[in-house]
Amino acid sequence: MAIRDLTALRDALASGQVSSEDVTNVYLERIARYDPSLSSYITVCAEEALVAARESDQAIARGRARKPLEGVPLGIKDLIDTRGVRTTSGSQLEGARVPTEDAAVWAKLRAAGAHLIGKNNLHEFAFGATNENPHYGACRNPWDTARISGGSSGGSAVAVAADLTPASIGTDTGGSIRIPAAFCGVIGLKPTYGRVSVRGITPLAYSLDHAGPITRSIRDAALLMDIIAGFDLEDDLSVHAPLRSFGARLGRGAKDVRIGVSRTFFFENVQREIALRAHELLERLAGEGAVIDEMDLDLSDIPDAQNVIITSEALYAHQQRLEVGGALYGADVRDRLMRGMSYSSVDYARAQRIRYALRARMRRVFEDVDLLLAPTVAFLPTPIGSGVVALPAGEEPVRNHLTRLTNPLNLAGIPALSVPCGRSSDGLPIGMQLIGPELQEDLVLQVGEVIERLYPLEAPDLNEFMGKRG
Amino acid sequence: MAIRDLTALRDALASGQVSSEDVTNVYLERIARYDPSLSSYITVCAEEALVAARESDQAIARGRARKPLEGVPLGIKDLIDTRGVRTTSGSQLEGARVPTEDAAVWAKLRAAGAHLIGKNNLHEFAFGATNENPHYGACRNPWDTARISGGSSGGSAVAVAADLTPASIGTDTGGSIRIPAAFCGVIGLKPTYGRVSVRGITPLAYSLDHAGPITRSIRDAALLMDIIAGFDLEDDLSVHAPLRSFGARLGRGAKDVRIGVSRTFFFENVQREIALRAHELLERLAGEGAVIDEMDLDLSDIPDAQNVIITSEALYAHQQRLEVGGALYGADVRDRLMRGMSYSSVDYARAQRIRYALRARMRRVFEDVDLLLAPTVAFLPTPIGSGVVALPAGEEPVRNHLTRLTNPLNLAGIPALSVPCGRSSDGLPIGMQLIGPELQEDLVLQVGEVIERLYPLEAPDLNEFMGKRG
Repeated sequence: MAIRDLTALRDALASGQVSSEDVTNVYLERIARYDPSLSSYITVCAEEALVAARESDQAIARGRARKPLEGVPLGIKDLIDTRGVRTTSGSQLEGARVPTEDAAVWAKLRAAGAHLIGKNNLHEFAFGATNENPHYGACRNPWDTARISGGSSGGSAVAVAADLTPASIGTDTGGSIRIPAAFCGVIGLKPTYGRVSVRGITPLAYSLDHAGPITRSIRDAALLMDIIAGFDLEDDLSVHAPLRSFGARLGRGAKDVRIGVSRTFFFENVQREIALRAHELLERLAGEGAVIDEMDLDLSDIPDAQNVIITSEALYAHQQRLEVGGALYGADVRDRLMRGMSYSSVDYARAQRIRYALRARMRRVFEDVDLLLAPTVAFLPTPIGSGVVALPAGEEPVRNHLTRLTNPLNLAGIPALSVPCGRSSDGLPIGMQLIGPELQEDLVLQVGEVIERLYPLEAPDLNEFMGKRG
Repeated sequence: MAIRDLTALRDALASGQVSSEDVTNVYLERIARYDPSLSSYITVCAEEALVAARESDQAIARGRARKPLEGVPLGIKDLIDTRGVRTTSGSQLEGARVPTEDAAVWAKLRAAGAHLIGKNNLHEFAFGATNENPHYGACRNPWDTARISGGSSGGSAVAVAADLTPASIGTDTGGSIRIPAAFCGVIGLKPTYGRVSVRGITPLAYSLDHAGPITRSIRDAALLMDIIAGFDLEDDLSVHAPLRSFGARLGRGAKDVRIGVSRTFFFENVQREIALRAHELLERLAGEGAVIDEMDLDLSDIPDAQNVIITSEALYAHQQRLEVGGALYGADVRDRLMRGMSYSSVDYARAQRIRYALRARMRRVFEDVDLLLAPTVAFLPTPIGSGVVALPAGEEPVRNHLTRLTNPLNLAGIPALSVPCGRSSDGLPIGMQLIGPELQEDLVLQVGEVIERLYPLEAPDLNEFMGKRG
């Protein structure tokens, strides 16, 4: 199967050009062949997928009113509940948990005609340190299987990059969709907070958790958002906001779009090759008619605030589980959770006040520009097992810098897209973030599509690493 | 001066029927005469008020384009910054603080033509216990000066009830506008969170603080809201939301308005006379064509959550002040603040999660009804100095029950109006709350006006207590 996107596959299925059963079989074969070297799936549901595929084929043959994803097999991150299929959240503790209900996002995808091919690997409870899930194996980067794929939605991004699924749904609490998307050379969208229901998704930090698509094209991200977004009366965290088609602005180019760039924060201590690529991209966007606006956005108070909130809310979510099954946690996750015990409620109140200030600051920024552009991660994917990374200011712990450029957007709750922007001299993918105002995912996708045209998405050569284990 | 409202006064000024100087003098005389028995003002600015009044009179005489409040003297709560006039926040620590800028809300009122007559008494930092400000005296209820006026905006409500100002602006973090409005027999509106800028207002608990009007008529509340509401780009806590006239729905009556009543929570352990009045009111509203809908709204998880948040945020706001001037705090406020030190960040995270759930619950409630009706306070104003109150379930500490029926609406961030509903057999005012969905202050005021017609606002006989000090 050549690189094709979900939209093309969906069209081929709808027109009867291919059958869902054949497509599903191809994906199952690819998974069987390549995934032992990648570990992008925790669970593969071959039989159920084939049953569902045949049902879709019958529906298509009968000419029934077609659903937008009829016959499409999908992998999704394994902390999204799937009725009857175990949902481990990447943990040993919940390694045998079989939900009795679908998460809202999966229920919507199923209602749209998709069927489950498997559950994608992730960091333990989406909170593991770098990429070494102690229970389900390190999820490997298909561009270099000795390197990390990023996380926590690593399995989703790897499976999408390696075409072991046409697309996936990930979650993002500090960058967990965008980081692996950048590291694996695919597209990842963290929407506005509350835009996609998180009902039935294992929470990490409820005020920062977002669900969103990981895809091989911008149009696919819009297609999936059209299906999964929308107010959910049963989800306390859902936001009631007007919906228009997420693809409504595709094709409009970048002309006259004002793109802000902040040297401060977003370009501090970023590997040279990534910074240079960003500047090249900005020149090319200017060539497309975009107006580039340099600004000075001081976010130095954000990392601490984000850390207090994520750690406190994660401990809140895990307190009961820790009591009954603390020994089954990986040491890194347990240690990270335990750090939540050192914060006072005043620390949280201060952090939350900083969040309000950040939102106001971003509102003011978006009075002046339409979007912001920044690297997704300050460095290229690091070798699995290496805890440090070489940055311009010196060698630093990977975990301290992995989410540095992504997590302010979780605190702000505004949309942020990671889009591939070519590869490094070592052949590793580089991802850039487009950041937009609340609810303006369509604008983010509009300019994302221009970047997609300037730096077409590439596919890794999977046969290169066959038989290797990193 | 007979009981008249701000709107009538404004019209009389605009038509030249009365001069601002005369009106201001009358208010200054009334304050000089009655306020020694009431303590509703901390600061009276007689000279500045008269200068401003004469300027307004000249502007009116010159026939200049009239401002909506041209020539109106106003008292406002003394934690709202006023340039050049000391703003004590009811504290000794800040007893000499003179702001160099107006709070946003006061800047708007000044721009609308109003001038300051004085700063209304309040609980120390809006956080004192029952009504005994140790620094500026207990603010006395004009219906019985031996009784509390409620707080923390007690001075505002007393001054409005006693006609020592045509209206006032208060703040409400757990009920501080609505409780004194109910106890003093006037109208108090806590708007939607973020609807009125709190820039330049001394914070108590930033995520619960609201500013709003205290008035002698519903139309006055709408008039003031039209002036003070609106997005403030300089206030991090301000909400960007569409504005229409707050009085747009006045005159529409109560026909077909669905009013929800929850026996659970809002009618639990409420003094019998207040509960009976509520039922009488509901019958009369039904007679006006409203549809009364009984429901069961369980809010039992709210008081603890509200307490964690208010205490933690208050300690956050006061931490620095406490360090430099802890000895200047009243013991009750200091003790209450110190309790914030016992909460962990997980406690706050849990409370905040409950807030999200509450908002979702209220959203669902307002799918079924248009408004909720409940008493404002579970009991009638208590004697000053008495720490306990007789409730149906037994004698209880006043401070535990004072904000019980009001503070869930601060956590929910939705509009809540206290409107007078006659008096008790002892002649004490009874207030009822109308609670509406986010941003629907206009609907709350619409039905508030019906209640105002059914139970016309009364004026206390001020000469009765002259010379007494409670």
